[in-house]
Amino acid sequence: MVQDDAVVDQSLLERIHDEVRPLIGTGRVADYIPALAAVNARGFGLAVASADGEVFGVGDYRVPFSVQSLSKVFAFGLALSLETGRIWDRVGHEPSNHAFNSLLQLERDRGVPRNPFVNAGALVTVDQLLSRTGDAVGALRAFVRAEAANPDIDVDKAVATSERDNCHRNAALAHLIASYGNLDNDIDAVLDHYVAQCALAMSCRDLALAGRFLVRHGVRAGGGRLLSAADTKRLNATMFVCGMYDGVGEFAYRVGLPAKSGVGGGIVAVVPGRYVICVWSPGLDASGNSVAGVAALEALSAATGWSAF
Amino acid sequence: MVQDDAVVDQSLLERIHDEVRPLIGTGRVADYIPALAAVNARGFGLAVASADGEVFGVGDYRVPFSVQSLSKVFAFGLALSLETGRIWDRVGHEPSNHAFNSLLQLERDRGVPRNPFVNAGALVTVDQLLSRTGDAVGALRAFVRAEAANPDIDVDKAVATSERDNCHRNAALAHLIASYGNLDNDIDAVLDHYVAQCALAMSCRDLALAGRFLVRHGVRAGGGRLLSAADTKRLNATMFVCGMYDGVGEFAYRVGLPAKSGVGGGIVAVVPGRYVICVWSPGLDASGNSVAGVAALEALSAATGWSAF
Amino acid sequence: MVQDDAVVDQSLLERIHDEVRPLIGTGRVADYIPALAAVNARGFGLAVASADGEVFGVGDYRVPFSVQSLSKVFAFGLALSLETGRIWDRVGHEPSNHAFNSLLQLERDRGVPRNPFVNAGALVTVDQLLSRTGDAVGALRAFVRAEAANPDIDVDKAVATSERDNCHRNAALAHLIASYGNLDNDIDAVLDHYVAQCALAMSCRDLALAGRFLVRHGVRAGGGRLLSAADTKRLNATMFVCGMYDGVGEFAYRVGLPAKSGVGGGIVAVVPGRYVICVWSPGLDASGNSVAGVAALEALSAATGWSAF
Amino acid sequence: MVQDDAVVDQSLLERIHDEVRPLIGTGRVADYIPALAAVNARGFGLAVASADGEVFGVGDYRVPFSVQSLSKVFAFGLALSLETGRIWDRVGHEPSNHAFNSLLQLERDRGVPRNPFVNAGALVTVDQLLSRTGDAVGALRAFVRAEAANPDIDVDKAVATSERDNCHRNAALAHLIASYGNLDNDIDAVLDHYVAQCALAMSCRDLALAGRFLVRHGVRAGGGRLLSAADTKRLNATMFVCGMYDGVGEFAYRVGLPAKSGVGGGIVAVVPGRYVICVWSPGLDASGNSVAGVAALEALSAATGWSAF
Repeated sequence: MVQDDAVVDQSLLERIHDEVRPLIGTGRVADYIPALAAVNARGFGLAVASADGEVFGVGDYRVPFSVQSLSKVFAFGLALSLETGRIWDRVGHEPSNHAFNSLLQLERDRGVPRNPFVNAGALVTVDQLLSRTGDAVGALRAFVRAEAANPDIDVDKAVATSERDNCHRNAALAHLIASYGNLDNDIDAVLDHYVAQCALAMSCRDLALAGRFLVRHGVRAGGGRLLSAADTKRLNATMFVCGMYDGVGEFAYRVGLPAKSGVGGGIVAVVPGRYVICVWSPGLDASGNSVAGVAALEALSAATGWSAF
Repeated sequence: MVQDDAVVDQSLLERIHDEVRPLIGTGRVADYIPALAAVNARGFGLAVASADGEVFGVGDYRVPFSVQSLSKVFAFGLALSLETGRIWDRVGHEPSNHAFNSLLQLERDRGVPRNPFVNAGALVTVDQLLSRTGDAVGALRAFVRAEAANPDIDVDKAVATSERDNCHRNAALAHLIASYGNLDNDIDAVLDHYVAQCALAMSCRDLALAGRFLVRHGVRAGGGRLLSAADTKRLNATMFVCGMYDGVGEFAYRVGLPAKSGVGGGIVAVVPGRYVICVWSPGLDASGNSVAGVAALEALSAATGWSAF
Repeated sequence: MVQDDAVVDQSLLERIHDEVRPLIGTGRVADYIPALAAVNARGFGLAVASADGEVFGVGDYRVPFSVQSLSKVFAFGLALSLETGRIWDRVGHEPSNHAFNSLLQLERDRGVPRNPFVNAGALVTVDQLLSRTGDAVGALRAFVRAEAANPDIDVDKAVATSERDNCHRNAALAHLIASYGNLDNDIDAVLDHYVAQCALAMSCRDLALAGRFLVRHGVRAGGGRLLSAADTKRLNATMFVCGMYDGVGEFAYRVGLPAKSGVGGGIVAVVPGRYVICVWSPGLDASGNSVAGVAALEALSAATGWSAF
Repeated sequence: MVQDDAVVDQSLLERIHDEVRPLIGTGRVADYIPALAAVNARGFGLAVASADGEVFGVGDYRVPFSVQSLSKVFAFGLALSLETGRIWDRVGHEPSNHAFNSLLQLERDRGVPRNPFVNAGALVTVDQLLSRTGDAVGALRAFVRAEAANPDIDVDKAVATSERDNCHRNAALAHLIASYGNLDNDIDAVLDHYVAQCALAMSCRDLALAGRFLVRHGVRAGGGRLLSAADTKRLNATMFVCGMYDGVGEFAYRVGLPAKSGVGGGIVAVVPGRYVICVWSPGLDASGNSVAGVAALEALSAATGWSAF
């Protein structure tokens, strides 16, 4: 349940920063591509954006980092808006007990990814965006620029190139999906746009602002509607049960908010109807979630009583 | 997000009843034991209890039915209250992708059940209650009687006996858990108490009233504290990601509330901080959830905007 | 292919003994029950029996040890003889990729064990023997006594009692099989006879002699027929693909003979049409197969050219 | 056990042909590519080649058909000969319980295929042949031409092209293997050679003759050595436990010979030390094995007593 008296302010975020400081720099930085491994392992940023766009932040909350899987939330929201719900025929909304890039369940489910927040689901999302827009990553970039009011948001080309050269596993997922007839576009094009979207560089501030449609019942920052209230509720609910890989239950238990994490060290969390939180710190735990990031969200949830329940 | 203006009243419940009437009697009544198969397949009840004990109800909302797995919520709440959290060492809080009585994951997880809402988790809960109280089902019955202010709540002996004679699969679960050292009491005693707790007969009204600690931040109907607010939040969060078997994502998508279902046809759902809903209708879908019950919750959620998000 | 010129004699076995001597005492002795853990870890015996009953042996080949899973071969042969093939409806003949006592596949296959050489299959075998004979272990004991011409073969009561007190996992298997309707007798009786059969104490000499029906096309030592030639061939073939747990391929690759191992450290292997080999040494590898035993069979196979192929 | 008195002659094969005639045309012809679906569904051929090259045959035993997975046996034998055993570090020898093109186990085993007879294993084999020879399919074609004394054996270009256009699943396997670092060559090149090898067109006569190294202890038709006797034994043993996909146990039970099947409807079976059998008929059972082909091998095994045991 969202406590009505829970108020966020600068001093609260500073206390949280102090509390998790010993954890910053712990965990393991993603190093499967050189461009990611080069990040400052001691970076930490935390931003909270209210529904109407007020932002509080501490630490490196204006420093852009590689969004990686955080892009899945925005891409799926955009795909859903262009499709009035039909994408749910191509991707499920059940949690996955397996690691984020597992082929096990994809094969068992005959090419229909479990949910939009695993890599397979994101590939289908990109495929759908490509079919609708002709330029999936371009459409996504335009969307997040507008929502965050930051025209400088862009793809980090070095990261994208490096990921494209190391994407055998995503290629395997794409071919497997295609073998079941659930991919419409050329696989190379899908992979190009997928790695580009993962390589978007955004700050905690950008991400918190860009995620506000999730707490504005589907209404965009500029006032237009992206999604219906019902679709937005469904997206939050699906994120709650699917957004943290195989750590979904642990995160629900400790924090209790819909959230999505990325191997770049970012986590976007939603205080229903009120705030979007984005935290970033590159050191990851065994499930691929930011160590200091999860701890910060837990502390923030404990301090404010913010929870979905 | 919980809409502040959503008000429940008798006429709303009657509209919901009308809306789902075509579904009542559809689905398949659980028939693995004769005592359950004898239920009125066309039964339907719906009750909503507010945090402070006001109850609205329609249909057979005062007719007792076999609670079956709904008992898991109350037993676990009780066990948690007696243990100040230590039971979480013996049972996890991750969703299960498998059917409710699967041994697959239990073996993979070396005897630690995935969560308290699958049969294996409930066996561990009963074992813990037995160790603490000496009479697990007696303690549970006393608890629900007190919360529902109904001293007539009792175990249906015919159902209990019938289930005890047909519990090879639960016996297999219990022996497997024991083989990993995660069961302290005699297996026959654990099974006796487990089937008795499943055979509790309660009405929608009873169940909605008894579940109020979930919306009162852990405070019992009589004012004493069962659980801390944090533990109650965790219990709701865990129920959200684990309470509906392998249909967790589907239910989150359609309804968006923490809930637990039982093969007797009942579902208890929680509107965080505000209401406990209990709906009952014996016809089940393929996942073992009440067809008319899920539809009623979906309609209620749509009509009121009630959701965790 | 069986080399026609491969002749076994005492000096050959002594060479093999010398060759594997450094491995004797390595590996891990089964210690899940005290009675097994008390065995002499440095024991080693090797016996070869020809089809007509000539026996060569070295080391402790006359020392009785706990046959454990080796009993599965004899029990199944006996059950097959009493059933003229119908037991194959209750148990399959496909290899298992999982550990010997896994419930995973049993659940996936809806209560039909993968093959007679995993514990689940042996429980079904015992159940069938119980139904036919009224005394499964008695019938089995009579059979091996007759084949080995040794009236002293008997159940080690201390081992049987100890196993019965520690058989939660086999009880889980039995209940799971029963839940699918594939067990006819009382579960306690099945478990009693199962642990008794595993606790038979026999020497390498006993076991090599008792297994001769496997190389005599189904004809017993005394001249009567146990199985048809076709059934015997099928039993050998099934043992080849199923007899060594999850090490089937490795053993086929290294040795290339039908064989069955037991956690007591024994292995019975079949040189088709010619010899039965039994080797024993208690130290086990990670798959539960005797380290020195497998090495001895590999050396013997290399020295003689004995192989099924 | 191989019966010494079992003699193959023309009239025996004609009796087998008569016996299985009712099954010819039953089952389902592989139709995942048009070029395969165009085959004569009522075709049937059976050839038996002795170790020294005498051939008996009936039906369409001189009609070339698409060898598909039968190529795996020859390619692996060739790769093994060029590598003196090191390829066993890159591919296992354990049976697979899953369908022939499953990614499940490949992921679980971290990119090391279970055995050389599943698609993943064949891709690694092709990769190794490519590295050694520069022209994997060319080397393979030269080998089978020489062994079968038939210079007309060639790749069916229409089949190869058609398979290359429909190989998403093999591409997924290849990328997954590559993601674990177990593929050295360019993926497109590996796939080109893989589909070409599958598209080799050979007759039953060709295949029976070409497989003689398996019954000549590794010695080629022309007298040179392909493999050591020990390696040949291991190859036969591995084929016995791995050659018939998820129908390994069923085939061992019914026929009892090392064998490999292909979706073109061919099966190559080995009578250890004596004969190579090749049978062909396009109608497949649920496991992808030729219905009339398996029946013919079972009848032949029953008539002659041929078996590994």
